[in-house]
Amino acid sequence: MKVTILGNNSALPAFGRNPTAQVVTIYGEHLLIDCGEGTQVQMQKHGIKWSKLNHIFISHLHGDHYFGLPGLINSMSLLGRQAPVYLYAPAAIMPMMQNILDLADTVLTYPLHFHPLPEGSGMLVETETFKVTCFPVEHRIACHGFLVESKTKGRKLLPVQCRDYEIPRYYYDRLKMGEDYVRKDGTVIKNELLTTEGPEVKKYAYCADTLFTDSFIQYIKDADTIYHETTYLHADAEKAKMRYHSTPIQAAEIAKMAGAKQLLIGHFSSKYRELAPFRDEAMTVFPNTLVAIEGNSYDV
Amino acid sequence: MKVTILGNNSALPAFGRNPTAQVVTIYGEHLLIDCGEGTQVQMQKHGIKWSKLNHIFISHLHGDHYFGLPGLINSMSLLGRQAPVYLYAPAAIMPMMQNILDLADTVLTYPLHFHPLPEGSGMLVETETFKVTCFPVEHRIACHGFLVESKTKGRKLLPVQCRDYEIPRYYYDRLKMGEDYVRKDGTVIKNELLTTEGPEVKKYAYCADTLFTDSFIQYIKDADTIYHETTYLHADAEKAKMRYHSTPIQAAEIAKMAGAKQLLIGHFSSKYRELAPFRDEAMTVFPNTLVAIEGNSYDV
Repeated sequence: MKVTILGNNSALPAFGRNPTAQVVTIYGEHLLIDCGEGTQVQMQKHGIKWSKLNHIFISHLHGDHYFGLPGLINSMSLLGRQAPVYLYAPAAIMPMMQNILDLADTVLTYPLHFHPLPEGSGMLVETETFKVTCFPVEHRIACHGFLVESKTKGRKLLPVQCRDYEIPRYYYDRLKMGEDYVRKDGTVIKNELLTTEGPEVKKYAYCADTLFTDSFIQYIKDADTIYHETTYLHADAEKAKMRYHSTPIQAAEIAKMAGAKQLLIGHFSSKYRELAPFRDEAMTVFPNTLVAIEGNSYDV
Repeated sequence: MKVTILGNNSALPAFGRNPTAQVVTIYGEHLLIDCGEGTQVQMQKHGIKWSKLNHIFISHLHGDHYFGLPGLINSMSLLGRQAPVYLYAPAAIMPMMQNILDLADTVLTYPLHFHPLPEGSGMLVETETFKVTCFPVEHRIACHGFLVESKTKGRKLLPVQCRDYEIPRYYYDRLKMGEDYVRKDGTVIKNELLTTEGPEVKKYAYCADTLFTDSFIQYIKDADTIYHETTYLHADAEKAKMRYHSTPIQAAEIAKMAGAKQLLIGHFSSKYRELAPFRDEAMTVFPNTLVAIEGNSYDV
């Protein structure tokens, strides 16, 4: 599982930095989390294929987290997309999107399925390869974080060995589940000759925009990587609190409390040109901190 | 009067080209015409100051002409703007913008005055320095073009001569209107000693998205510069017609019929990487044609 940053800035675009959007990639499939203005262009620029995007998650209704959504929804239709798109977002986005489509006399070429976020925490989607749940964080308006968990697809096949031992294709799924292969003559081919250990299960916690609070620690416990906003440096901690935002030290405290392996910080205020001080501050509390840089991908 | 191109592409962003937005500058004041996604970033990039922008015009409700509006409206507020903004747009934009602001719990720091476009043609705004009227064009949904006319500020004062002849400041406005100055002793100082001819009145016609039709020629007659869309090359004239768009030859015919001095073409389909063929085609009918390039400014 990896996460690619498309926008790392807070509300006001500055210094070439864009508003919030990021893509979590699991077994080649992209999940888009938040969709600030310009996201469709950022996706093109950083090689994120729309054909591999089926699920979009919007944390809250501040514009820097969703003003790119109407454009993306429209552009996928202009390209004649057929596959459904699943949108998990605050309920009020549904009539807004419908209104935008109606006014343009647009009928999308693909089904757009809306799933309103619940009031508190809850399961949003579970597939064969991943699961996404949401949890409430504390922001100026209703806001959710998302926990993305990859599922193992079982053990990894060794293609050369499977061919050499003449394992029929229909048996591959059972090999992945760890079974041995038994020939008609009773010979047993041990599973460990045909497979190796599959990829690890990973947990990525996206904490959206939030003030510093331990109220959601329970939901992000033991995440491999936590993304936490750090809009202001510590010197502006009062301002951060007043505006329901956080500082690097606070984000680092959250990562520590949650027992995370890695912390990714972003959503930087336009007042800061330099981002290194954000990392420096966070590392005093949680050494394994990375600054989210647009276009970069991070292993979860 | 000059026009600066912020976006010259049609709906789908491609080859680094953005959706439609352009700025008409008159005596240092900017008028924004259409506001595709990314316009606020394009304005920053090309040095268009928001403090000099008071009037915004939206031609129609296809997303590539207004999806950048909510972001721009919000960002100006985040910067604490006080001066009012006047928005001339299809009526349905008003409740949409209000809904977006309400959902974000945002109260703008400045007054936003909405002026819905009339059904047909009509006057939108007249100031001391310019006048903007709108006229209907023929597109898939209701769509307006805009005619921007600069006004002369009268004759241009010659500051050295005015000082040498000891003309009192309160008299300057009358000098601009062409009056002579008469001293208390009856001596007449002829106006031509104190002023030169003022800047020319200019007309810029923005024809928005439209199929080829002479139905609006009456409104753009004798414009100095006509901006006309050319979404498709002539080989795709059938497709252009079907989708209510135009070709370079058609745009050139319009410029010729209207008696324009200059033609500016834009709104290029994402299927074309190269733009030179658009100019080549148009020039066969109307030689003084320019291709709208992002970041470039064109004298009207």
